Amino acid sequence: MLQVPQEESSRVRRQPAAAPLRIGLLGLGTVGAGTWQVLERNRQHILARSGRPMQIVAVAVRDLARAARIVGSAVQLTDDPWEVANHPAIDVVVEAMGGTTLARVLVLQAINQGKHVVTTNKALLAEHGAEIFAAAEARGVIVAYEAAVAVSIPIIKALREGLVANRIEWVAGIINGTSNFILSEMQDKGIGFAAALQDAQARGFAEADPRLDVDGIDAAHKISLLAANAFGTAIPFGQVHAEGIAGLEAVDLQYAEQMGYRIKLLGVATRGGSGLEVRVHPALVPVDHMLAAVQGSMNAVMVKGDASGTTLYYGAGAGSEPTASAVIADLVDVARTADCASTQRVPCLAFQSHAMRALPVVPIAVTTSAWYLRMGSDASPQAERAILRTLLRCGLQARIHGRYTQPDRSVHHVVLTQTVPHAALQQALAQLALLPMRTGKTQAIRLERLE
Amino acid sequence: MLQVPQEESSRVRRQPAAAPLRIGLLGLGTVGAGTWQVLERNRQHILARSGRPMQIVAVAVRDLARAARIVGSAVQLTDDPWEVANHPAIDVVVEAMGGTTLARVLVLQAINQGKHVVTTNKALLAEHGAEIFAAAEARGVIVAYEAAVAVSIPIIKALREGLVANRIEWVAGIINGTSNFILSEMQDKGIGFAAALQDAQARGFAEADPRLDVDGIDAAHKISLLAANAFGTAIPFGQVHAEGIAGLEAVDLQYAEQMGYRIKLLGVATRGGSGLEVRVHPALVPVDHMLAAVQGSMNAVMVKGDASGTTLYYGAGAGSEPTASAVIADLVDVARTADCASTQRVPCLAFQSHAMRALPVVPIAVTTSAWYLRMGSDASPQAERAILRTLLRCGLQARIHGRYTQPDRSVHHVVLTQTVPHAALQQALAQLALLPMRTGKTQAIRLERLE
Repeated sequence: MLQVPQEESSRVRRQPAAAPLRIGLLGLGTVGAGTWQVLERNRQHILARSGRPMQIVAVAVRDLARAARIVGSAVQLTDDPWEVANHPAIDVVVEAMGGTTLARVLVLQAINQGKHVVTTNKALLAEHGAEIFAAAEARGVIVAYEAAVAVSIPIIKALREGLVANRIEWVAGIINGTSNFILSEMQDKGIGFAAALQDAQARGFAEADPRLDVDGIDAAHKISLLAANAFGTAIPFGQVHAEGIAGLEAVDLQYAEQMGYRIKLLGVATRGGSGLEVRVHPALVPVDHMLAAVQGSMNAVMVKGDASGTTLYYGAGAGSEPTASAVIADLVDVARTADCASTQRVPCLAFQSHAMRALPVVPIAVTTSAWYLRMGSDASPQAERAILRTLLRCGLQARIHGRYTQPDRSVHHVVLTQTVPHAALQQALAQLALLPMRTGKTQAIRLERLE
Repeated sequence: MLQVPQEESSRVRRQPAAAPLRIGLLGLGTVGAGTWQVLERNRQHILARSGRPMQIVAVAVRDLARAARIVGSAVQLTDDPWEVANHPAIDVVVEAMGGTTLARVLVLQAINQGKHVVTTNKALLAEHGAEIFAAAEARGVIVAYEAAVAVSIPIIKALREGLVANRIEWVAGIINGTSNFILSEMQDKGIGFAAALQDAQARGFAEADPRLDVDGIDAAHKISLLAANAFGTAIPFGQVHAEGIAGLEAVDLQYAEQMGYRIKLLGVATRGGSGLEVRVHPALVPVDHMLAAVQGSMNAVMVKGDASGTTLYYGAGAGSEPTASAVIADLVDVARTADCASTQRVPCLAFQSHAMRALPVVPIAVTTSAWYLRMGSDASPQAERAILRTLLRCGLQARIHGRYTQPDRSVHHVVLTQTVPHAALQQALAQLALLPMRTGKTQAIRLERLE
């Protein structure tokens, strides 16, 4: 018989004494409270795996009364985050407060005080990672951030450790759960973006202010971190191209499906002869591709290594306990390597700092891509010829994949192009806008085969 | 401009001197040669990540001439594996020779000599892991085996480190590429098992003697290792239930597809109130499940943690360089932690050895499952009533999901049962065999929802 209480007690009895890892929490919101909860519930189980107790010593929060209801009286509560950053009896600070201003100075202060840092803050690392990682190296402390990308999925560990033998060719993924939930709703219910967004907000999958998610900024933060780990270079966040999903219409998802594709918001980081491409945008993905099977608020990241081939990592992209799972994994790594030489630790960005180098990020204007184009016209027979002639004139070899007559008698012409320079696509869009029989704006969405 | 040679040279110049990790290879077959090749090709890249050079000092092979053509003269070649196991100038032995007899004594000898061990040998660890891991702990050395399960996928690292915060509820996966390739062929081409096996052998996806793969033994080796890491217990290999795919027919894959399922060979390890279930068998999986999307020779493992929820790991399940990718990841972990205290390393089976415990593996005869049943009968109208009456008498609430008349006028009746005790299913099969209008043997395949 397996009975958890027995199991726990037997594990407790046989634990040797080990100095606990003393933890300070900045923030007790969804992430902080989840971390507390999982550490409490699985305390003995985690100890049985890590061999070192975890002890939350102090928690900084805005609402002391609410926090007291969660953590009780065993823990020092303060509404002054500097008390945690400077706390003499804390080994590691978990930054779960969000934001990039106060969080930045608090993290730098904790590092300066010789404390290790675990953060879930992708915006902070995408915008100030270079400064923070440099400070950590100078001070000989760890900055861990597994929860910053695709929370429950150990993708940072996979990139830095599991795939260490590989030259990474590309990383691509569905790394914003809100957008994927909205796209899945649009796909399954045939509803528009606005309705799907309302649905997502009602069901707690989207913030009241959803712009960070639906405009691709959150995904851009994450892909810049993945790219840095994949290619051993700091990515200036300003050079990451970000497009969101607000411009997508239900018909585009339907037309794509009829051609054997699904539309997903992808983060893509790839290395080519002229440098790196780091971009976030909606894309058509073949329906039999693993990424096309990722539904709802789930996340998945695919990595192509020269030795491993393609591997994929899938799981929850948000949520209190999935995030806590990653935070605690980082805490256990800190507990194991806190007393090791830095050469015995995994570097912050996968590569030894002296081997990091500046790789150029190529502007989106000089990239190439295949495209899905949806053009509207009146019902005149010459419309289609005019469209094809225009595309051809701009160097886009294309054929019509679908013709869809609309309730207002206008026609949607759907085209898939071969891979073309971004400039040629822009020129074609400008030319199409001048066609007299045109109705509405041309919809252009990238097509990614990810092979 | 990004030019690899520049990049390499710049990284070399800036490398500080570090004592190389001295490696001995047992075997230079697919795995050994792939490891050599990737270490050579990505030498500077791996150094830029790990900070410590890798040096293959000696290689033991049967065919010295062939080996010399691969590794040249820079490496000591021997046809005596004991020379590698006992080599005074080797820090870590990579066992890539296979088999469980000579490999076992060589690995134990290397451990006894204070050498770390990296092995790809799932059979060795499934059958002799307890002895090997105990010897390693007593001697304070590492035994790493990422390549032993779903080679290119860092699933052992994910289970032991990435999901360390979680109580694992179940692990399930497609962990035999040969069987999945054969099932994909049967599905896509509508051909039988024998034809698909020939195809797999012709294309190098199956051994001349495919029994280890198609009988589920290889998958059983792997699921026993996954179960041990998930639940912190040694799994006596004799207690792992293994069924293969040789008994499957193309019609079953077709009927399943028509009901919204694919048939996959799954390894499943799950913990329940009465103990662990560790089993390998074909199963129907809902077609929209991520595991149903795993085609050809690819592998995928899904893990359900109490905090993380379900996560999935996908990649190549075999191949020279995908295996090398995992072997080298283990070598880098050894390079980083060789000089650490054992408390600073990840335990061999995820849990501190004093916290490991014997959990009972429940016999397959006392498990419960839902089932797909295909029963053949003559065309008589009372056949279906007799079948349903028989099932009901044995406690199987079931309804006919499909009726398929065969060229010989006989009829296939297809049923999905609810979850029933294994004994009830066995009784039903015995009773069905007695029906006078029966034609052929009843096909019974488990149904797994993996939610």
